Amino acid sequence: MLKNIIIISLWLGSLGLQHIAAQENIHPTEKKRMISPEVHANNSVTFRVYAPHAQRLSVVGNWMDRNATAGAGKQAMQKEGSYWSYTTGALPSDLFLYQIDVDGAVFNDPLNVYQIRDVNNTFNYFLTGGEQAAWYKVYDVPHGTMSTRWYKSPTLDKTRRLTVYTPPNYEAGKGKYPVLYLLHGMGGDEEAWPSLGRVGQILDNMIASAKVKPMLVVMPNGHVSNTAAPGESSRGQYPIDFFTPDVGSGKMEESFSDIIDFIERNYRVKKQKAARAIAGLSMGGSHTLFISSYLPQTFDYIGLFSAAFKMNDNAENPVFRDFEKNLVRQRDDGYKLYWIGMGKKDFLYKTGEQYRELLDDKQMKYTYYESEGGHTWSNWRLYLTEFLPKLFRNN
Amino acid sequence: MLKNIIIISLWLGSLGLQHIAAQENIHPTEKKRMISPEVHANNSVTFRVYAPHAQRLSVVGNWMDRNATAGAGKQAMQKEGSYWSYTTGALPSDLFLYQIDVDGAVFNDPLNVYQIRDVNNTFNYFLTGGEQAAWYKVYDVPHGTMSTRWYKSPTLDKTRRLTVYTPPNYEAGKGKYPVLYLLHGMGGDEEAWPSLGRVGQILDNMIASAKVKPMLVVMPNGHVSNTAAPGESSRGQYPIDFFTPDVGSGKMEESFSDIIDFIERNYRVKKQKAARAIAGLSMGGSHTLFISSYLPQTFDYIGLFSAAFKMNDNAENPVFRDFEKNLVRQRDDGYKLYWIGMGKKDFLYKTGEQYRELLDDKQMKYTYYESEGGHTWSNWRLYLTEFLPKLFRNN
Repeated sequence: MLKNIIIISLWLGSLGLQHIAAQENIHPTEKKRMISPEVHANNSVTFRVYAPHAQRLSVVGNWMDRNATAGAGKQAMQKEGSYWSYTTGALPSDLFLYQIDVDGAVFNDPLNVYQIRDVNNTFNYFLTGGEQAAWYKVYDVPHGTMSTRWYKSPTLDKTRRLTVYTPPNYEAGKGKYPVLYLLHGMGGDEEAWPSLGRVGQILDNMIASAKVKPMLVVMPNGHVSNTAAPGESSRGQYPIDFFTPDVGSGKMEESFSDIIDFIERNYRVKKQKAARAIAGLSMGGSHTLFISSYLPQTFDYIGLFSAAFKMNDNAENPVFRDFEKNLVRQRDDGYKLYWIGMGKKDFLYKTGEQYRELLDDKQMKYTYYESEGGHTWSNWRLYLTEFLPKLFRNN
Repeated sequence: MLKNIIIISLWLGSLGLQHIAAQENIHPTEKKRMISPEVHANNSVTFRVYAPHAQRLSVVGNWMDRNATAGAGKQAMQKEGSYWSYTTGALPSDLFLYQIDVDGAVFNDPLNVYQIRDVNNTFNYFLTGGEQAAWYKVYDVPHGTMSTRWYKSPTLDKTRRLTVYTPPNYEAGKGKYPVLYLLHGMGGDEEAWPSLGRVGQILDNMIASAKVKPMLVVMPNGHVSNTAAPGESSRGQYPIDFFTPDVGSGKMEESFSDIIDFIERNYRVKKQKAARAIAGLSMGGSHTLFISSYLPQTFDYIGLFSAAFKMNDNAENPVFRDFEKNLVRQRDDGYKLYWIGMGKKDFLYKTGEQYRELLDDKQMKYTYYESEGGHTWSNWRLYLTEFLPKLFRNN
């Protein structure tokens, strides 16, 4: 009895606000807890929102093609009592983001605590069933460790934050591991690949199924004018703007060896070209192609995911000025994989085509993977699951 | 020029949804980006929400005394154009949580990406200025590492997730450190102390100011029927319910030495009683008092933060059955600090009083710290900043 009183009080009491939110989680007529989203066996999904006085609610989700026709980017919910609901058709196997449009203003789904920030918005997310999304889920397999650490960059004269995935049993073992450096896009930071990119889940699952070699994955912050993700640096909390002066400055490329040095001094890793990979999406793809050509004899595996190519006006910087020369050196030094992924509808498709022409012109060998869709995390997660099994095969 | 086109496209394009959200972030008349919340120099705070067609908006915040009068738990926002706003009076120095009530349904503030989950809701948060909140902010001081790891519990026959803070320079050094085991309440998990409890920031800042000895802080999951926080285990995403059968079962206490063993095998830590502390809030306070009495000669420092005392009906379990005997043994074995924090308005105040009477009766020495307020994270962060400087002083 005492136990129950305490438990109920703890349940409601930890924060005054729980009280309010808890009430609206109970459907007034059905007297049961409402669930949103609910993923059905056929991958259709039902959303439910309590909004007794609203005039019009819609679901805004990234599975909708908002360019198709006007208004196709949101789907109207139906009202029943104080609740609104909407059920999708069968969705693909993936992680999806969405929000709720309430009378023309966009909010999160209050019943879904699972949220991820992407650029300057926080979205609700859910995972559907099926083969591809299975890589993104947690299973009872051996798990790696995810750490946020700070490293000194002498080149930038800053202490900066990065995220490191170490594979299962790394801590207990003695062996040395290869390393993948994995870079985010312009809207991201050191938290993007671990959250939107599902790196921990993908690595755990692909290592467990022996599709991928155990490796470290190092996810630094690609905006060198920042030291850490929003809210995690001494700038505190601020309105997020990634249109920073460092974009295209060449400073990420010039300072990148500080990160390699830090990792190789602080972790049990192999320090050869054959045990180093680098990949990045969008702006991080641009970083990847410039870094891998700028640093001689450093990477045997290079991955460009929807890569931006020229993001610079700073043609005097040696990273960009000597690029074609560096590319030829990279070709002559040799490498094992130069992997390019691009979506058919990506707004960078044309740029990517031009870049492949340049590679052809320089007789640089590469593997090209063209997917459906555009400039999306759906593609970047897919590219990661395609790229990882090709790494460190003879290592 | 090319740079700018690519940058603008990347800025808007990473996700289709950005487009919509980005538009509403611009005030239609002022043509500038709107900010919410805005913390002013005097610690008053302005909230702004775009909601052109709503009838009534209110801010619901945990600084409001919702028990004072009906409706005092929310504050009405004023409409101007399509925007609503509300400015508080000067707030105390702290981290605050809030949501927005839109026509009777509660949502998050779409302009504030900074969010924390507490129990089964995700709240927006902000930090005010002043002395106490300064411990909770990030400064340019040496930073520790925060890791999520999995450990094997032979007692529970499970692999479970925990969070570990290692102090600045832990990885580079050779010295051994003391350890604080820090336990969450019934609504929490291994992510509660790092997020709501600001453990990384508090430790970094207090170590940098030499108020606190460098130490590891280990934050396990106190619900032994779960292996990890919601969304982080093979249960996947599910509606959160912490009213689990393990509460008061004694299994957390019985299996706790598995956690100590894991930490002492895997980290450079001192393995003496004088270098071990344990503390917990609410249910975690209950865990703390039972674990510290159940395990002989293990902890020299014990902290009970708004502790629940008897949460068990399982009187046959030796953890509870032999409690008074264990307490006398704990007293005779000796310890350096038995610290109790409780808020004057805590619904567990009376229980705490009874527990102190028991301690008096058994001639157990303790330090008692009574604060204002109730069963809140505001108090638990405060208690942590009071407790930490007292640990490992002669160590």
